[in-house]
Amino acid sequence: MNRTQLIEQIKAKRSFLCIGLDTDLTEIPSHLLEEPDPIFAFNRAIIESTRDLCVSYKINTAFYEAEGERGWVAMRKTLDFIGRDHLVIADAKRGDIGNTSEQYARAFFETLSFDAITVAPYMGSDSIKPFLKWRDKWAVVLGLTSNEGAADFELQPSGDELLYERVLRTAAGWGTKENTMFVIGATRAEAFANVRRILPDHFLLVPGVGAQGGSLTEVYQQGSNREFGLLVNVSRAVIYASAQADFAAKARAAALVYQQEMAVLLG
Amino acid sequence: MNRTQLIEQIKAKRSFLCIGLDTDLTEIPSHLLEEPDPIFAFNRAIIESTRDLCVSYKINTAFYEAEGERGWVAMRKTLDFIGRDHLVIADAKRGDIGNTSEQYARAFFETLSFDAITVAPYMGSDSIKPFLKWRDKWAVVLGLTSNEGAADFELQPSGDELLYERVLRTAAGWGTKENTMFVIGATRAEAFANVRRILPDHFLLVPGVGAQGGSLTEVYQQGSNREFGLLVNVSRAVIYASAQADFAAKARAAALVYQQEMAVLLG
Repeated sequence: MNRTQLIEQIKAKRSFLCIGLDTDLTEIPSHLLEEPDPIFAFNRAIIESTRDLCVSYKINTAFYEAEGERGWVAMRKTLDFIGRDHLVIADAKRGDIGNTSEQYARAFFETLSFDAITVAPYMGSDSIKPFLKWRDKWAVVLGLTSNEGAADFELQPSGDELLYERVLRTAAGWGTKENTMFVIGATRAEAFANVRRILPDHFLLVPGVGAQGGSLTEVYQQGSNREFGLLVNVSRAVIYASAQADFAAKARAAALVYQQEMAVLLG
Repeated sequence: MNRTQLIEQIKAKRSFLCIGLDTDLTEIPSHLLEEPDPIFAFNRAIIESTRDLCVSYKINTAFYEAEGERGWVAMRKTLDFIGRDHLVIADAKRGDIGNTSEQYARAFFETLSFDAITVAPYMGSDSIKPFLKWRDKWAVVLGLTSNEGAADFELQPSGDELLYERVLRTAAGWGTKENTMFVIGATRAEAFANVRRILPDHFLLVPGVGAQGGSLTEVYQQGSNREFGLLVNVSRAVIYASAQADFAAKARAAALVYQQEMAVLLG
């Protein structure tokens, strides 16, 4: 999915919601554990009940890798079930020397049909550029993350700026607004004005609303741009809204609250 | 495998060689493509012919992920075939918020039986600490990598030190020399004295000898400590020593050159 298509989806659905499929066998309703593929059974129900409310799904690959090859099967079936009308993000935090990042790009863009993958910037340009060679695919570079550990390196000085600022500024030069997004955590709403000074045009993927406590309104007011420029991800607060038989309906209800708040913000 | 066992293996084999299984279907001998599991067939032959010469194998997960679930099956079979006498490293460069890193630790330490996993430090403490909770398992933190892109962030100033120095100093405080190693590229031999000032006791995993051009002697002279403290990884220069039917014998010959050089250095 390219940038124009993503913007059209946001307009049509009046939503910039991304739903995070952090599907954990210890959290899903226990009756699903009797299904032949519990992860996929859960995802299918969540997707069926939310697909008109969101423009993107984000698959947190760690939860699938923890299940070994059956996790990869569930991931592939989930991608097939989502189809082509949502931007599907592999939240995989990959990145390695060039010939290896090339293999990761193949894994997520070819073997699996993701539209985007999150990538870690520590190793620099040649660890990320291989992800930028694919038409209508995206690298989503970690900028300022929502977790406590962001203080250890991301928020440390780097010359006359902070490390995350250097990362945004440098990595923006490796690609374009058509193939690069950045992760900026919602728990750092005060940073969005600064982020927009460095990146006026790029889309930002924003985790941290919901279970982590970030405010959607603040994120929108400080982080949006004239082409929206935001995908706000909610994972646990949607998909685990209930652990009972009504989980899909409750997930829809939770997603609807976010979508309606987004529709108001979009005006 | 714990630190004491690793040191015993180094003494017994007179080797600190780690062989990198970056197994690529486009590089392995073409006759293997007729096997039911070409990746495993290749790995089995390489392991059979080199296991007495090395103390560690490193599986570059990207090459396996690119093959989807059959890649994960090949990875699991390879781990089973290696057994428990080598330190087996998942070169996976993972790292995410705490609940997600916990899942990656489960994936590589439980679902798969790796001894160690490489982790990316950008997101800070809570992205790495979950990997340190496992007895006799290791987190191998990226420090100063062997690639060109290391100049973009790792070698940039961070306060009154360089970023990679801050990473080494900070991450060394999260665990111990019993559960933490660091990646230092062999192509930066001039940095090893500096690394040893910060980390006198830790094991270093050193890629970049072989195809990337680093010198084994220089690495040993500048990087070893009184308990050896080094694992030197060679991937392509060993496993792709020949693309013909004699590939396993040629891989052994290439590994033997490294092992013999190491035996001389160990004195």
